[in-house]
Amino acid sequence: MALYEQLADRMAQHIRDRVLKPGERLPSVRKASRSSRVSPSTVIQAYALLEEGGFIEARPRSGYYVRATHFRHPPEPELSKPSKKTVTVDVSELVFSVLDSTRDRGIVPFGSAFPSPLLFPFDKLARGLASSMRRIDPWSTVTSLPSGHEELRRLIALRYANDGMNIGAREVVVTSGALEALNLCLQAVTRPGDIVAIESPAFYAALQAIERLGLKALEIPTHPQCGVSLPGLEQALQNANVKACWLMTNFQNPLGSLMPDGNKAKLVELLARYNVPLIEDDVYGELYFGERKPLPAKAFDREGLIMHCSSFSKCLAPGYRVGWVAAGRFAEKVERLKLMTTLSASIPPQAAIAEFIQHGGYDRHLRKLRRALAAQKDVMIQAIGREFPKGTRITHPQGGYLLWVELPGSINTLEVHRLALERGISVAPGPIFSAKREYTNCLRLNYGHIWSEQAEEAIAILGKIASSPV
Amino acid sequence: MALYEQLADRMAQHIRDRVLKPGERLPSVRKASRSSRVSPSTVIQAYALLEEGGFIEARPRSGYYVRATHFRHPPEPELSKPSKKTVTVDVSELVFSVLDSTRDRGIVPFGSAFPSPLLFPFDKLARGLASSMRRIDPWSTVTSLPSGHEELRRLIALRYANDGMNIGAREVVVTSGALEALNLCLQAVTRPGDIVAIESPAFYAALQAIERLGLKALEIPTHPQCGVSLPGLEQALQNANVKACWLMTNFQNPLGSLMPDGNKAKLVELLARYNVPLIEDDVYGELYFGERKPLPAKAFDREGLIMHCSSFSKCLAPGYRVGWVAAGRFAEKVERLKLMTTLSASIPPQAAIAEFIQHGGYDRHLRKLRRALAAQKDVMIQAIGREFPKGTRITHPQGGYLLWVELPGSINTLEVHRLALERGISVAPGPIFSAKREYTNCLRLNYGHIWSEQAEEAIAILGKIASSPV
Repeated sequence: MALYEQLADRMAQHIRDRVLKPGERLPSVRKASRSSRVSPSTVIQAYALLEEGGFIEARPRSGYYVRATHFRHPPEPELSKPSKKTVTVDVSELVFSVLDSTRDRGIVPFGSAFPSPLLFPFDKLARGLASSMRRIDPWSTVTSLPSGHEELRRLIALRYANDGMNIGAREVVVTSGALEALNLCLQAVTRPGDIVAIESPAFYAALQAIERLGLKALEIPTHPQCGVSLPGLEQALQNANVKACWLMTNFQNPLGSLMPDGNKAKLVELLARYNVPLIEDDVYGELYFGERKPLPAKAFDREGLIMHCSSFSKCLAPGYRVGWVAAGRFAEKVERLKLMTTLSASIPPQAAIAEFIQHGGYDRHLRKLRRALAAQKDVMIQAIGREFPKGTRITHPQGGYLLWVELPGSINTLEVHRLALERGISVAPGPIFSAKREYTNCLRLNYGHIWSEQAEEAIAILGKIASSPV
Repeated sequence: MALYEQLADRMAQHIRDRVLKPGERLPSVRKASRSSRVSPSTVIQAYALLEEGGFIEARPRSGYYVRATHFRHPPEPELSKPSKKTVTVDVSELVFSVLDSTRDRGIVPFGSAFPSPLLFPFDKLARGLASSMRRIDPWSTVTSLPSGHEELRRLIALRYANDGMNIGAREVVVTSGALEALNLCLQAVTRPGDIVAIESPAFYAALQAIERLGLKALEIPTHPQCGVSLPGLEQALQNANVKACWLMTNFQNPLGSLMPDGNKAKLVELLARYNVPLIEDDVYGELYFGERKPLPAKAFDREGLIMHCSSFSKCLAPGYRVGWVAAGRFAEKVERLKLMTTLSASIPPQAAIAEFIQHGGYDRHLRKLRRALAAQKDVMIQAIGREFPKGTRITHPQGGYLLWVELPGSINTLEVHRLALERGISVAPGPIFSAKREYTNCLRLNYGHIWSEQAEEAIAILGKIASSPV
């Protein structure tokens, strides 16, 4: 056996024994050459062999990392089966009490809705803040109100165009994060008492908005791989007077499901037939692990019925609170609602983001972020597979940073949440994702944080809690 | 006559003849010495004499300016007499059509709601953006959600303390401008169908919020000098089931009225007696022309009934959209509504403003801004006095940058608005400040822009339009 083969074998064994852990960075060629007392070229050959064998992967300009794909994915949850009644929503207090508990820095943030801020280019954005604002025409701070920073709107339209979508800058209204966009859209197309169709499980902010505006929620069965059930939705449209849909077509929160293009086209066609607008929450679209960026349903829209909402909060600039909506035929209505409620989004963060998109290497940053999240996903799934009780089901998301975990037996995840918190770990319990507080045996876990010993231990502790039905 | 007296006499004549116009900057001592061929000390003596005579005023580090107080103020409007019925509001479309027309940069911005962006320290703020964001802990972009940037909240609480008010940083919720604060407060204390007492005339955003939330407006007589009529308000509280008040205690928009401290104390006592919360819109409080900053009604609150809303948009950083509310006993409710609708205000603008307050010379900037606005006010009032028809009444605000002008005869200011716009001038017509579209003979004019030949001409044109009843 050649020297480089011996070295590769030894390292493969380390990986199988988890001496080298999934996601971990291998020593640099120079370092490995010194510590193993072989030439750099031997190390390079060994690493190439390991890469071929699927043990490690190269990340451009960053080095070699232990791959995390050498495992059988645990089974996934099945299509959800929510009850068919519309309900008045009353889940806000529960959501608040859970969210409040996740804000402490000392807590392991599996329950958080945000990825790690350490994955974002804060310094570069900060430089963009100053330079763009020094160049800005002071008058634009008045004239850019309320639709948003002109250049940013143009760049957003350009990115739509790059995805083959024809959306003018004038249709784009910049908002205080996607959450404001979603709320304005919902207000634009509903009145108190109206029925809104949502996924099941659903993003809790949708539930809260429905509650706050005195609307009723109709939960539609949703598949962890391909998203909302179209037959389920059609049945709802036939049987109930649905006034709007609020759906996440790409990497749904909490399931991580991704509607196939074909389904999206059918969804748009179905909604056009019933003349029901769609509020499309697409905040995770940029965080895909596959070859190509998934299209939103908006790409198939011919009637102006789709209100496409997104933001830079999850993919570039957390805390900057810059989102937008392309609201089709409702664009003017949304803009006016915005003018009445918050007037306009803050100008400096918009200018900084426009600067970054043009000169900061936005696409390069996105590639790096996607790779990091994909690797972290694999590591967390493996850890859960090891530590959680038999019968646990885990989603297999193709993007985003959220896992949905279905525990076996008659466990109550509100109780798991409470016990985990006592041990310094936050989780998002299933019932906060349902108007009827269903999914009592489910958890949403966030893998958007850099993996650590502490995370490893936290999964083990959660596994123990989940193994003792409460 | 000494040389300096001759020079002073000549310049006084120039001022009387309006060769040197009110608000205009005098040549520097060196320049005047050269052009008049006298020694610098002669110029200094002449300027001192003119200052003594009230013709000019020194502005620290800026030079001498022609004073604008040498005129008799035209009569002021009287107490408003709105009808006593509550009404469903339906004024939004009118407001939008008027506002849309004022956004064009070529238009003389008398109808604008903003002061000139040129009066603000954009460059210095931009530097603060970069430096504060480079120092910021990335995690704080998550943990600062949703109540706001910790240091900024502390500084706001400190400024309250300097005014003798005891408001903790924890009561302060940072919002996307004061407008969001006001809207959240209104949502926190009302349900559709409720009655809200407002001033008459009222800020149109209050009317729009009342309309949007399905509330009813009850307009209270309001005095152009001392604000809302307390007997008028008490009568309303007795006769109608008022669920909230929305008032501007300092430099009300559009009247510019300033409630005396005594009235504020009585207002708070009155509301406590009826247990009715006050949404106090205090965005102009820092723009006082008198000796001392006027207190808000909040300063007299013992029951936690006053929700004090303000922002930095009018006094420091237009377009940054940083406002706040100290909402007393409703603070948690407001914070949760915020969490549900926009999550949190953008972090970088908050950090930059905190930096400016601490190190940028905020109070120095405010003094300069107040002087500029006070001078511009005098100039505009004089111009109106000269150019508008006899019988015109004008308010005499002690702060802010808005004049309320009552035209004689049966003129319709919606028509004045239309005609003025054809001539490239915007005005804010009276009816947009009333749920019942009253004040058809009134205009709100903005003096927050640097005075110019163009402004001078625009007032003359408006005077002509106002002289031909339509």
